[in-house]
Amino acid sequence: MSAENGTSKRRPGRRPGSADTRGEILTAARRVFAEKGFDKATVRGIAREAKVDPALVHHYFDTKEGMFAAAMQLPITPDEVIPVLLDGPREELGERLVRLVLRVTAAPETREPMVALIRSAMTNDQAAGMFREFITNALLYQVAARLGVPQLQVEAGFAQMFGVIMGRYVLKLEPLASADHEELVELLGPTLQRYFTP
Amino acid sequence: MSAENGTSKRRPGRRPGSADTRGEILTAARRVFAEKGFDKATVRGIAREAKVDPALVHHYFDTKEGMFAAAMQLPITPDEVIPVLLDGPREELGERLVRLVLRVTAAPETREPMVALIRSAMTNDQAAGMFREFITNALLYQVAARLGVPQLQVEAGFAQMFGVIMGRYVLKLEPLASADHEELVELLGPTLQRYFTP
Repeated sequence: MSAENGTSKRRPGRRPGSADTRGEILTAARRVFAEKGFDKATVRGIAREAKVDPALVHHYFDTKEGMFAAAMQLPITPDEVIPVLLDGPREELGERLVRLVLRVTAAPETREPMVALIRSAMTNDQAAGMFREFITNALLYQVAARLGVPQLQVEAGFAQMFGVIMGRYVLKLEPLASADHEELVELLGPTLQRYFTP
Repeated sequence: MSAENGTSKRRPGRRPGSADTRGEILTAARRVFAEKGFDKATVRGIAREAKVDPALVHHYFDTKEGMFAAAMQLPITPDEVIPVLLDGPREELGERLVRLVLRVTAAPETREPMVALIRSAMTNDQAAGMFREFITNALLYQVAARLGVPQLQVEAGFAQMFGVIMGRYVLKLEPLASADHEELVELLGPTLQRYFTP
């Protein structure tokens, strides 16, 4: 792999920095993530697929996680979520997480790309693999490690919020779908707090 | 409606009690449930669709809930679940529910019809409506009423177990997918117990 006569091949087929270079990188990223999954996809491989220099990919996207989030049009990246969770009193972490998830999913324009990704993960094995690798490696295992909590507990918390969001916005179960944020924080906060306690 | 010249029309187009009468009723039921939803579907309407006498439908299926479960090939009906939940010490209800859900979903032949129903509810609005009406009216609201617990709390518990089953069997998140039942009972039991406490 590393022995391929690299530099001569690296000449881009399109002008670097052209108006839609970022869009072309994202199109290539979606293709590579779908084909290889999140773990095996590389910035280098995505650059090759987009026919641009890897440095240009790094210019637009700091991390593979950020590129995945952008490619899937996710409104928020793990790099943004994790500090919000950790920043504040540990004993309010459950409540903080519930508020964050409810806030991010309240607006259709931030919710719909996530629901779309989950829908494809529910009905397509390849999409499920991609989603699984992303959600565990980029989010759940990171949170577990930072908090010193077993991964299983973090996944139980993910399952609770996943079920609430699906019940609220996809299945539209009442009264869950109309419940206000404060009511849900009171109901779900202690559950998440317990799962996030070592 | 009730004024239609009923009896003369009720003559079945197929022999009552023929080898696959039950199968024909179920085919008709799937069609009627999909078209009208769970609430508006009636035994009479399903009998008409199947071209059999309503009494014959009642001969095969005691309740509309039972017919829905059979039509969707669900391995268990609310009429069976609710007594299991209520039979036993109230302080072990959370644990009992977790065990029941894990047991019913452990075997592929009982799990897969449920997952199929959920998948279609996640991707199709009509299927979502049918699933929503069934799960709320036939199961969640009944449990809430019998236990004297707010519906929202019962739905939070449903969301927890829905997320666990999807995480375990569809998204296949590790370590959740490989966790054993006892580990999950210990982790999730107290959550359900709290939601099922008035």
